[in-house]
Amino acid sequence: MPDISQKAIHMPESPIRKLVPYADIARSKGRTVYHLNIGQPDIESPIAAINAIKNMDLKVIEYSHSAGFESYRNKLATYYSSNQIDVSGEDILITTGGSEALLFGLMTTCNSDDEIIIPEPFYANYNGFAMSAGVNVVPVTSTIEEGFSLPPISEIENKITKKTKAIVICNPGNPTGYVYSEEELMKLRDLVLKHNLFLIADEVYREFCYDGAKPMSVMQLDGLEQNVLMIDSVSKRYSMCGARIGALVSKNKAVIAAALKFGQARLSPPTIDQIACEAALDTPQSYFDGVQTEYVERRNIMVNGLNSIPGVFCPMPKGAFYCVAKFPVDNAEKFCQWLLEEYSFEGQTVMMAPANGFYSSKHLGLQEARIAYVLKKKSLLKSLVVIRNALKVYPGITDIEENKNLSKEKPQHDQH
Amino acid sequence: MPDISQKAIHMPESPIRKLVPYADIARSKGRTVYHLNIGQPDIESPIAAINAIKNMDLKVIEYSHSAGFESYRNKLATYYSSNQIDVSGEDILITTGGSEALLFGLMTTCNSDDEIIIPEPFYANYNGFAMSAGVNVVPVTSTIEEGFSLPPISEIENKITKKTKAIVICNPGNPTGYVYSEEELMKLRDLVLKHNLFLIADEVYREFCYDGAKPMSVMQLDGLEQNVLMIDSVSKRYSMCGARIGALVSKNKAVIAAALKFGQARLSPPTIDQIACEAALDTPQSYFDGVQTEYVERRNIMVNGLNSIPGVFCPMPKGAFYCVAKFPVDNAEKFCQWLLEEYSFEGQTVMMAPANGFYSSKHLGLQEARIAYVLKKKSLLKSLVVIRNALKVYPGITDIEENKNLSKEKPQHDQH
Repeated sequence: MPDISQKAIHMPESPIRKLVPYADIARSKGRTVYHLNIGQPDIESPIAAINAIKNMDLKVIEYSHSAGFESYRNKLATYYSSNQIDVSGEDILITTGGSEALLFGLMTTCNSDDEIIIPEPFYANYNGFAMSAGVNVVPVTSTIEEGFSLPPISEIENKITKKTKAIVICNPGNPTGYVYSEEELMKLRDLVLKHNLFLIADEVYREFCYDGAKPMSVMQLDGLEQNVLMIDSVSKRYSMCGARIGALVSKNKAVIAAALKFGQARLSPPTIDQIACEAALDTPQSYFDGVQTEYVERRNIMVNGLNSIPGVFCPMPKGAFYCVAKFPVDNAEKFCQWLLEEYSFEGQTVMMAPANGFYSSKHLGLQEARIAYVLKKKSLLKSLVVIRNALKVYPGITDIEENKNLSKEKPQHDQH
Repeated sequence: MPDISQKAIHMPESPIRKLVPYADIARSKGRTVYHLNIGQPDIESPIAAINAIKNMDLKVIEYSHSAGFESYRNKLATYYSSNQIDVSGEDILITTGGSEALLFGLMTTCNSDDEIIIPEPFYANYNGFAMSAGVNVVPVTSTIEEGFSLPPISEIENKITKKTKAIVICNPGNPTGYVYSEEELMKLRDLVLKHNLFLIADEVYREFCYDGAKPMSVMQLDGLEQNVLMIDSVSKRYSMCGARIGALVSKNKAVIAAALKFGQARLSPPTIDQIACEAALDTPQSYFDGVQTEYVERRNIMVNGLNSIPGVFCPMPKGAFYCVAKFPVDNAEKFCQWLLEEYSFEGQTVMMAPANGFYSSKHLGLQEARIAYVLKKKSLLKSLVVIRNALKVYPGITDIEENKNLSKEKPQHDQH
């Protein structure tokens, strides 16, 4: 039997999905499992998108253009313009999810063994795309104590070597929910220009900003047009994760032309899903207002609830629909597994994503877990009751006084 | 401005799509362009699939399982069983098109700089996937004179080095339409076992076999269960190219488990499209019988028509819906471009895919083009008139006697 590849052996398992077998065990015991582990919102997809699919008049489900339907690209450019991001349809490559956009972005910009610098914790699947592209991830640590703000720019600069090709950020952040300030982005801009790097920004949570925070796009950074690649997706914006439609956006024509070659190899993004996405662009602002209100309430319930549990600390995020919390436990992965395998409170338990998998540094985040507050408020409240009671009996509890010196009120840095 | 990657620079353009700008020119002159360049059938997708989409009752377009819906995988296994391919749902990973299945297959089996041996001409996008996976393609040439049958096994064996990790075949073949005989596959089987290689077979044209030819799957080769990866797709089977749903199938559990990790990184294949594909599995045999009859007629019109043109030679393929023809021209790419840019007959012209891009050896196939006979018979007949007349005036014509020694009647080796 021939061996599988080293890439395949070292490809990390998704920390978001690795505990799935234990969730299956919990369910097999008849327990209700609250899925706080995955960013699959329960918000309904826009009715315009659903109707576009139901009413489509296709007899042959044909390939689209490799760059996506021209009509969709142009309409998407208009959407970006209304978000003060000045691009045309030619600056856009429609991809199969934000995932493919990031993969194409890495393959287009980085040679094998080149390095990309990413503030950690970061969206764990970046590891997978880096592995696929043969690129090495160099983390710079942001800390829960600092609310996951951008690490000092000198720390990032210290990581730059001859192999460094790009800095990758996620803004608003997954898993942290942190929204970078204009000041932070300007520092990144200067660093990128100084060292002639690419700046790749995953901005799929643009619509999810709270407390007046306004997300600034890397596309708005003056003088950085040739360096910037923006990753986008409809998954979260329209609660259409299963549509698998994203976009790679750049004013750098060499980047888009090269990425299109990777796009041609895989022929086209899904056709029906693009039809849905084009229709979704007509979604009225009231949809987003409703979603926004809902998520602010959910966030407040979850984050305030977590901070009210002895020994738990969770910075208040201003974006996305995740938070990272620190628990008074020996090991958060063990704790998460124990919650599924051993524990229940009134027949219920929770599934969280251990945060260690979101750090590239192996020893970090061992007491942290990512929580997606994508469930109904009632379910979030029940999840909090489960966590609170679980911590009273979890065998691997540590001194709950330990997190006391972390200010529970510590807000994210003010924006603007 | 930072440089794009070497991978991006060397990534080949698709020979199927590279002449698109010239087709746009032809159309801008008001000319009708017959698209013989791309395997986008005009056959209607099964009504069951279309109805499943129109009648779906989804409110949230959610992710599916990273391996695809379990119900779809199980039903697909039943379909394979009815094709004498004995697999279970656990041996199947649903992918975003056959493209992703091949990419995952390469990443799972090959390290960077490993080699894969492929009989050329081969589906040009294999180059792109190999480039993406950092794998080197080693071609073994099959010839138009031999109807593109498997090159002598000794020639393949001569190409095996310490770096060789897999042999990749496409059966029935794109671009050649050749269907491998059981004898040819058994020879490959012995070679693969002798050298402990993987055998990756793209079998997406399984349903398109003519003149009684029966496609044998590599999954049916005894003793090769741990070596074989089968690539599948719904694109051609159900004329659903735009659905972007494929599958990676293997009895090798390490391969499927590793490929799933790559699958987890990209979250899931498209949801709505899987719903359509699951429904498509109920398509009655009469649909395929009708398609089969249609394609046999189209093939006969196209291949017999080409062979009736002085100086043109085209072996009669027994599968897929492509043929590769040799033209009495200086350079087939120039000829194809000239057809679009300069020529028209009664306001019409044709677009073909120059075959050179399907060869890995740079100097081969320079007089050949791939033709997809996916248009209505009337359009195929008109295309033939265009080609016949074009060759009377094309400035780069060569001696049309040159191809005379190629037997126009040469059939593909008999199957079974």
